[in-house]
This record gives sequence, structure tokens and C-alpha cells, in this order.
Amino acid sequence: MDTSTTRAFFPSMERINTRDHYLKIKKYMSAKSGVIYHRGGMTLTRDDTDVELDFRQESNFLYLSGVEAAGFHIVVVLENDTIYLIRPDRPKVEQLWKGIPEPDAALMKKYNVDHILLDTEVKDFLKELKPQIIFTLDSTNMDYNYIPVEYENRIDRTQLKNAIHEARLTKFPWEVTLLRYAAHISSYAHMSLMSYCGEKYRQKQVINEAELEAKFRWVCGKNGLSRQCYIPIIASGSRAAVLHYTDNDKSIPSHQHALVLVDAGGEYRCYGSDVTRTFPASTKFSDEAITIYNIVLKAQKAVLSRLKPGVFWKDMHDLVVRILCHELVELGLLIGNETELLQLGVYRAFYFHGTGHSVGLDCHDVGGKEISILDSTRKGSSLLLLQRPLDENMVITVEPGLYFNDVSIDLWTKDPAYKPYFNMDKVNQYRVVGGVRIEDTVLVTRDGIENFTVVPKEVHDIEALMQQ
Amino acid sequence: MDTSTTRAFFPSMERINTRDHYLKIKKYMSAKSGVIYHRGGMTLTRDDTDVELDFRQESNFLYLSGVEAAGFHIVVVLENDTIYLIRPDRPKVEQLWKGIPEPDAALMKKYNVDHILLDTEVKDFLKELKPQIIFTLDSTNMDYNYIPVEYENRIDRTQLKNAIHEARLTKFPWEVTLLRYAAHISSYAHMSLMSYCGEKYRQKQVINEAELEAKFRWVCGKNGLSRQCYIPIIASGSRAAVLHYTDNDKSIPSHQHALVLVDAGGEYRCYGSDVTRTFPASTKFSDEAITIYNIVLKAQKAVLSRLKPGVFWKDMHDLVVRILCHELVELGLLIGNETELLQLGVYRAFYFHGTGHSVGLDCHDVGGKEISILDSTRKGSSLLLLQRPLDENMVITVEPGLYFNDVSIDLWTKDPAYKPYFNMDKVNQYRVVGGVRIEDTVLVTRDGIENFTVVPKEVHDIEALMQQ
Repeated sequence: MDTSTTRAFFPSMERINTRDHYLKIKKYMSAKSGVIYHRGGMTLTRDDTDVELDFRQESNFLYLSGVEAAGFHIVVVLENDTIYLIRPDRPKVEQLWKGIPEPDAALMKKYNVDHILLDTEVKDFLKELKPQIIFTLDSTNMDYNYIPVEYENRIDRTQLKNAIHEARLTKFPWEVTLLRYAAHISSYAHMSLMSYCGEKYRQKQVINEAELEAKFRWVCGKNGLSRQCYIPIIASGSRAAVLHYTDNDKSIPSHQHALVLVDAGGEYRCYGSDVTRTFPASTKFSDEAITIYNIVLKAQKAVLSRLKPGVFWKDMHDLVVRILCHELVELGLLIGNETELLQLGVYRAFYFHGTGHSVGLDCHDVGGKEISILDSTRKGSSLLLLQRPLDENMVITVEPGLYFNDVSIDLWTKDPAYKPYFNMDKVNQYRVVGGVRIEDTVLVTRDGIENFTVVPKEVHDIEALMQQ
Repeated sequence: MDTSTTRAFFPSMERINTRDHYLKIKKYMSAKSGVIYHRGGMTLTRDDTDVELDFRQESNFLYLSGVEAAGFHIVVVLENDTIYLIRPDRPKVEQLWKGIPEPDAALMKKYNVDHILLDTEVKDFLKELKPQIIFTLDSTNMDYNYIPVEYENRIDRTQLKNAIHEARLTKFPWEVTLLRYAAHISSYAHMSLMSYCGEKYRQKQVINEAELEAKFRWVCGKNGLSRQCYIPIIASGSRAAVLHYTDNDKSIPSHQHALVLVDAGGEYRCYGSDVTRTFPASTKFSDEAITIYNIVLKAQKAVLSRLKPGVFWKDMHDLVVRILCHELVELGLLIGNETELLQLGVYRAFYFHGTGHSVGLDCHDVGGKEISILDSTRKGSSLLLLQRPLDENMVITVEPGLYFNDVSIDLWTKDPAYKPYFNMDKVNQYRVVGGVRIEDTVLVTRDGIENFTVVPKEVHDIEALMQQ
């Protein structure tokens, strides 16, 4: 709970600048008076016990306050930009268990705020302020909020949220530093899995997906990424075709076609990363695996080379889809006229997710809420997460894939309307590959991108790393 | 979500026997008719995003149903012991993301239940049963329950909970197997930290508490303990005196007195372990550290040698307290008549927690709810977690400690009523040690214990392991 971290051996990181975050948020609010009040996350315990669960700050509160610890609140008076940080009271007896809290002066300096109050004082303080309007967020557990009952009809729950989401979409330099570090360390963790699998394969040791997840977390953790941005996906063999497979508890098959798809990224000081690599269990891609892998890689590179401010994400998704469709026709796996196949969406038998999303304090960060990631019909429009042109300092993923998922293949190929477009011999030939996804996290710069992801992705580079 | 785990390389584990668990629970219920209905945990997402949080089954549901996956319910008809397991419906489109669910026949066999229903059918099914009384639990999120509104006045929320808690207190053989494995692997993880710290010390590398936490999780994880039973405490230097320090983000000091207190235990298939070891950062205990360490070890061994069925935990706590008090007087740190010191509770300046608790599906398992773990007065009675005689097949921790916590020392030694009992020169001489806790998880057997914890704890053994 003590927030005075001294990670002496981790790279020195610029601190989140709370005041600058607030001022950016304010720009997106039409209101120029009133009070912002938001409570951060509280420590929870496991059902029916007193055992504390791991605490991770709620992202919007973190963005607004900069505070990673539990039990804080924030009040900002919009008229004069005065920021009050509210900390939890910690009686002496609790200090025996939790330590001595950081002094108020240190908190004020660290977070660049004007005043520190205790949580026991919030309610009275809000009353004193007599706000005409209180801007707050609809977070979970807001039943624990401290807004006096007489102000309940003065609460606005939408303006602040929209403003925070707008602000979070483009990153400050200190956010870029944190995101870059998270992606770099995650990249090293991906490389360590490739080496580890190669070593174990040479030793003829069967390993389990769980071991790879543990290894990934270890490389992240020892470099200060103590938490993952999302549950790692360690999907070997046919499981690589199950998009959000997270059981991670099966033995890794060693047959020549078997791939291991690892979709994992750590987070540093709550800033995340999202990286996928797919590599051969046997340290050498089979011919079928190389073919599928290189189609996905081609699509990914095509997008990466075109990204810059002003580009529409929809166009990038369409580009991926055109490439995948074209290549599957070339391969003889899809049959027919490409334009017709695209219109019918037949490629979606093998590619049924969006091409990317914003990354920041969350893995699926702000800016993508308008369209659901899951489309309940297989013939729906493209799955788009971003509906606006890209802008400098956005951080996004580029993650095309191809999947031989039995459920998906059945849905399409057993439908008489679509059956003629599939060459089942070819489908069955490539089914053994399971699935391939290649995903990088990149920063949009003034005239292109900086790729935060530094894991090899060429077939020969991956094989070389695994066979070292 | 797929529950068909095949951890090929982990030790083969006997499966939880759902029916035997239910029959044991029933023995502790006075009711012999009516219906048990309980819903297990649901997958949650991180605030304001669609990113799933790690799912861990609620312990009471796991005990009753044996199911580790999310979204299940259970219905049992008490009259005829018929068990209905309810699984979540998973439409095709969701299978693309989550995989194909296990077939019903496999579920019935695995969990030894009579029928499988879909969650969409539960409400109607409960109506059909026309139960006179429904036994359920007051779990979190029970607003998502499926009990028809017309039965709300027939709900009993206490009898089932009390019965499950009674049943969980003594373990079945298959539970013992899981708990033993969790403690053994956690023991290896503790040993790996000692070796690792020794190696880094010889290389003159400064390491961070976070690195040790990551290492602990790695050794657990690669052996199938993918989750910790509680947040690890990696407390170096003065932080070893803060009982529930979990920041784990400071550099480990290398001065001659510095200790590292590691309180951590993994869980295997939801069965936990709870182990603490304290070792010297410099691979060699200082004289002061040896003195304090051996007092704690003496108290722990005294308890371990006396444990067997029929023993009262209160007597064990009193034994610890007598030994600590006696040794602190011998050391010249406490001044006065031992009986008087014990009556006044002066030893509590250095020992302010209970001596142990039950372990099972939770770290602070059932059987200890009557008395709060935190006592708000420093002169209160002993902190006891178990108020009944020990019984065969209970699993408990034995965890005495001594702490030089500044807040605690000030509370006692600045009070004129207690000041005369402390020799401040001695207090200050030993303050540099920080804190020591030694904790084993043990099984109560017919005539003694089996110690599940296999980490060295003698001073020379720890030093040898670290200097290897």
C-alpha cells in the first residue's frame, strides 16, 4: 500500500503528471465550472474469507489521479483547477499490518496536487464546496461513494467519462515511455519462450502450456512488470485456432506442424502491451505452416508500412482482408472471384476478429466501444475497433491472423450457400497448422510508426532463435 | 473454460469426489429434505473494459461441486441425493473464442453427478422441483442467482454454509494429496529463492523484492501451481516487521543484519499452502539475527512436537507466548517477572498475531471466523483462530514470529505504564534485525503431524543452501 516505490534497478521512469492529465481531460469537457469527484478502487477480499485479492487501480482513476494504490479519491474544482487528493486513513493498529503511510507532503509533491484530505473528511468537504454539478464516473462499487445524498440530483456521469476517454486515446511522452518499456520487456519474454521451447525440444522434454505462461510471467516480473495486461493465451496445436483460449494447461504437441501461439503482454505501472507470436513446437516450421505464416506476415507488414496520422483503421482492416482473401485463392483453398468472395465475407471462415485496437492503461483501451468485438452473425460487416482517423501518439495493435477452427470451418463449409467456395482437400491439408496470429504494439508518430515490439517474426529468425 | 485438463507432466492427482463431499456436508445439516442450490463464480471483466479478469472458483462452490470453471451451478435434491450439475450454455459464435465445451457425458463421469442441465433451464427446473426449502449461500454476486421470485421466502442461507464449513475443516485423502503437493512445490520455490539470493549476493548484484516474487511464482507455475494462495509477502530489511507488507518493490539491502522474510504459498487446483521462511540477505545471519531467529524456531518446534488430535490451539498459542517471553527476558530485552509480563501482555510489542490457522481451499480457511484476526487493543486476549480441539486430517499452519516494528515499539515503550518493562538499549540493538517468522503447513495425523513443508529452517542449513 505504500506507494513510495524504489525500483532501484529498473529503468528510471518519468512519473505520470497528474495535473497535465487533468488539464487535458478538462479540454474535452464543455463544463468550465462544477466539481470532479471520483473514487479509486478499493481492496477486495476473496469470497467468504479475509484474504486480500491482488489490487489493480481502475484505469480512469489512475489516469486522472496518477495513484496506483487502493482507497484514494480525487476532487477537482473546475473553476480554479484546484486538485484535492484524498487518502485512506490508516490507524496505528493497521500500520502494524500495512506499514506507515507516506507523509502528506510527499504525496503532494509526487502527484503535483494542491491539498491532501482524509477519506473520513470527504463527505463534509463535498458539502462545504456546495457544487452546482458533480462530474463522476459509473465505476463498479460506486455504492461506496461519498457524495452527500442531497447532491444526488446534481450528478453527471457521462461528460467526465467521455472526456477521459478522449484524453486517453493519444499519449503523453511519459505514457509513451511506460508503454515502450512494457512492450520491450514483453518482447524479451516472448523471445525467452522461443529459446526455452527450443532447448526443451532438443532435450526431448515434453512441456506444458502452463510452464510457458509461468516463464513469460517470470521474465516480465523480474523486470518490474508484476502484472499482465490480460490473461496470457498460450495455445498449442489446434488450440491456436481458439481466439481467447486461456486454459493454458495442455501438453505441447511435438508433431511437425504443431505451432505455439503466444498472445501475452505485461504491464508496467498499469501501462500495458499486447504482443502475439506464433512459433513451431519442433523449432522448424512445416511447409504448410510456413505458407500460412507468411500470408499473415505479409498482411501485417502491409498495414505497418501504411500506418501514419490520418489513416482510417477501416481501410487497414480491409487491406488485411483483401490480402488474406487473395492469398487463400492463390493457394487454392478458396475458390472463385475475389471480389465476390470479399462481398460474401467467405474469408471470415479463417479470420474472424478485428485487425487491432488501441492500447494504453487497458489492453482493449478507450476508443473502441462503439462496435462490439463479437459479431453474432458470420456475414456481418468488418469488425472494427477504431472508427476515426489515426492520430500522432496513438498506440495501437496490428494483429492479423488465420485460423483453422473446426467450429468456424463447419459453420461455413456445411452451409450449401457457401460450400462451393471452399476446396475441402486444401482446407484439410492446412487444418493441421491450427492457427497463426502476429501482433505488434506500435506508436503512431508524425509520419509513420515506432514499433514497440522487438521480437523476431521472420520464419528464419524465429527458427534461428529456437535452434541456438 | 474447457475443464478437460491434461497436465501430463504434473503428478497424477486424484480428483475431488463431488458426491463424497456432498454426503459429508449433508451429515452436518439437520434438514433431510429440500433442495440445495448454489451458483459458482462468474467471469468478471476489468472495470470499463471487455478484458476478462483471471477466474478463480469460489471455494464453497468448488468444495460442493468439484468444478473449477466459471458459470456453473449445482442443484441437489436432499431426499434422494440426486445431483444436477448446471453448465453454461455456449453458442457456436462463442466457441470460436472459447473452444468447444466438454460433452455432458464426460462432465457426468468426471464429477460423478446424475444429470447435466443448461443454465438457461435452471429457473424452470427449480420451479418444477417445487422445493419446500432452498439451501443456498450468501456469496458475492448472488444477485445473478436463478431462484424464482416466488420461492424467495423459502430460502435458508445459514444451514448450508455452516455445514460446508464443518465439512471443509477435516480433509479427505484426495484433498490431502493436493495440499501436500502445493506445500511441497511451494517449499521448492522457497529453496530456489534462498539459492537465487545467495548467487546474486556473490555476484554483487542488487536485487529487488519484485524479482523474488516473480521467481517464486515461476517455480510454482512451472509445476502447475499457476495461482498463489494469497499475495506473497517479500519483505526485506525493516519491512519484515510489517506483517502484511505486499508492495514487494524495494531493493533488498545487503547490510549484515538484513533479513528477507518470504511468506508465500502456491495453490494447486485451488488447494493452498502457507509457508514462511526468513533468511539473511548476505547469506550469513548476523549474531543478533541468529539470536532472534533461534528464539522463534524454538517456539515453533515446541508447538510442532506437541500437535496431535485433542490438543487445543489456545494452549499452543500460550506455549509460544511463554517461550518468547521467557527468551526475551533471558536476553535482557524485557525486564521483570515473567508471570507479570505475560499477564500484562508486554511480549505483544514484538508478537502481535495468532500462531496459526486452518489451510485448505483458502489460506485462512474455515474454522476461524469467530474471532477477528485484528485486535484493536494492544492489551486484548490472545489472537486465536481455532477454538476447538485439533482433529485428525485438519491442515494447519504453525507460525510464530518476532518483529521489531517501530509503530508497535513506540506504542508500548512510550506508554509510562509499560516503559519500565523494556530495556531500550537491547531493543535498539535488535531492531536492526527487522522481523522473523517461521511458518510450516502441517497435517494432523492420528498421533502427531505430517509436516508438508520441506524447506530447511536451521540456521546452518539455510546458510549452506545460500552459499552453495
